[in-house]
Amino acid sequence: NDGPAKQAILDFVGRVTTPGGPDLVAPEDRIATFDQDGTLWVEQPLYAQAMFALERVRALAPEHPEWKSRDPFAAVLSGDLAQVAHFTEKDWTEIVGATHAGMSNEEFQGLVKRWLETARHPRFGRKYTELVYQPMREVMDHLRANGFRTYIVTGGGQEFVRAFATSVYGVPPEQVVGSSIATRYELKDGKPTLMRLPKVFFVDDRDGKAIGINLFIGKRPYAAFGNSGGDREMLQWTAAGDGARLKMLVHHDDPAREYAYGPAGGLPDTKVGTFPDSLMTEAEAGGWTVVSMKDDWKRVFA
Amino acid sequence: NDGPAKQAILDFVGRVTTPGGPDLVAPEDRIATFDQDGTLWVEQPLYAQAMFALERVRALAPEHPEWKSRDPFAAVLSGDLAQVAHFTEKDWTEIVGATHAGMSNEEFQGLVKRWLETARHPRFGRKYTELVYQPMREVMDHLRANGFRTYIVTGGGQEFVRAFATSVYGVPPEQVVGSSIATRYELKDGKPTLMRLPKVFFVDDRDGKAIGINLFIGKRPYAAFGNSGGDREMLQWTAAGDGARLKMLVHHDDPAREYAYGPAGGLPDTKVGTFPDSLMTEAEAGGWTVVSMKDDWKRVFA
Repeated sequence: NDGPAKQAILDFVGRVTTPGGPDLVAPEDRIATFDQDGTLWVEQPLYAQAMFALERVRALAPEHPEWKSRDPFAAVLSGDLAQVAHFTEKDWTEIVGATHAGMSNEEFQGLVKRWLETARHPRFGRKYTELVYQPMREVMDHLRANGFRTYIVTGGGQEFVRAFATSVYGVPPEQVVGSSIATRYELKDGKPTLMRLPKVFFVDDRDGKAIGINLFIGKRPYAAFGNSGGDREMLQWTAAGDGARLKMLVHHDDPAREYAYGPAGGLPDTKVGTFPDSLMTEAEAGGWTVVSMKDDWKRVFA
Repeated sequence: NDGPAKQAILDFVGRVTTPGGPDLVAPEDRIATFDQDGTLWVEQPLYAQAMFALERVRALAPEHPEWKSRDPFAAVLSGDLAQVAHFTEKDWTEIVGATHAGMSNEEFQGLVKRWLETARHPRFGRKYTELVYQPMREVMDHLRANGFRTYIVTGGGQEFVRAFATSVYGVPPEQVVGSSIATRYELKDGKPTLMRLPKVFFVDDRDGKAIGINLFIGKRPYAAFGNSGGDREMLQWTAAGDGARLKMLVHHDDPAREYAYGPAGGLPDTKVGTFPDSLMTEAEAGGWTVVSMKDDWKRVFA
């Protein structure tokens, strides 16, 4: 919808692309970074990748009879979603190790693609790839039409997101910066393979997003989009650059069409997309634009 | 010079760019990867980055009186180059920790740029950036003119190479894949900084080159260029793809204009650019093209 958020985007793009203007940015430096979960697609009631991991636990359970009596697997297999909602990072690391490793990257991406074809969101009954936010796709398109490269910078798994980023967002693999587990190079019957290991390599969240942006891109973004405390450092890093910089936070304040959480409340018991009050304070102090899903988005899903 | 190496490049580019041809590669998948030291510029008698590190040790020595009696620093300060030539990986890690860390990435790149302006190669008396191989620049240009993106995939430091890759090779920061140390995100007077830590994060050499290519690019190269055992896995990984793939090794067999090492011998005592006989055997068996510096290069330096 027309309003300050849309206007901030149009003004920014105008400034950095005006020939001879004081804020003109060379095309090769037009970098925009987007968080994924909660910024580009729905993240409630649980990250899609967590849903994928839980289904993998159920699918692999027959090969692991011991899981029935061993948490965190037992909680997943008994369907105790309240307990799942309170899994610690250690629980998730164990689940990721059991479900995301022990295969090649190609095999893993194959599993992700097949899952995305069959899985349905518990509330909306649609594929996760259909729960991408239409206004964010329009922002990506507008930026790309003005010479920007759009990167996804996600706390989620890099190979998980790469499995669909090109078809869903038009973002190629080399523009997906994410968390990763270690891989091992192996020759199998003379054919090289990258085997996924149950060992965290890089966590692309919070300070890791600024570190990851420098590691993978080596340029400071001119525009960054997030929706949670995990995106704070990415927006700080973007804001600290010279000239015009666009910093935006999606605020989930629309329980009718999607969800209300963060400062809008309504989902107090979730760990997903934590949007602390301090982030809203920092956004206001720093001139970051907060996008109201309820007011600024004519349509939510693509 | 005209010959099988030049012909292999021209044939490959023709095959992957012929519209409607069986080996046509979509422009977004035209990825070529280049090792740096010994493939794009001179690496003898020591990697340029090692020369930089040694000069940093000498520059920082007044602040570290204890270095005079402590190896590996003592060897550097006494000018014992024979000992330096036999430094272990642990020695180098210690030197890198003392010379490449404890500052921001910007400060580090500033040091590298200033060093490149003043340092001269011990034999050729020229700046290192003038010791780039002219034929390799021509290959890069030819590939780029045909829609390829050219990546540097180096065992050397990612931020070290980024400091000059754009001006020297026309390769932007996001196309430099290299070894890296860990960084820490810090707010200094409210301004975010990435501080370099004396801790290895990723070693982009040997198997690390295949791992790094997947991590940073997520696509398999169609062309790869190396000159040592450190490039073996990058070439294997490239060769394992479907369709036309170009695999090239620069063989240093030109002691008059540059150096002779690897199978050409002549520098038996060096650890730089190790080119074992097994690599030559693998190249011959796999149809990799070995480029003779002496025969195939009309001019060596740009």
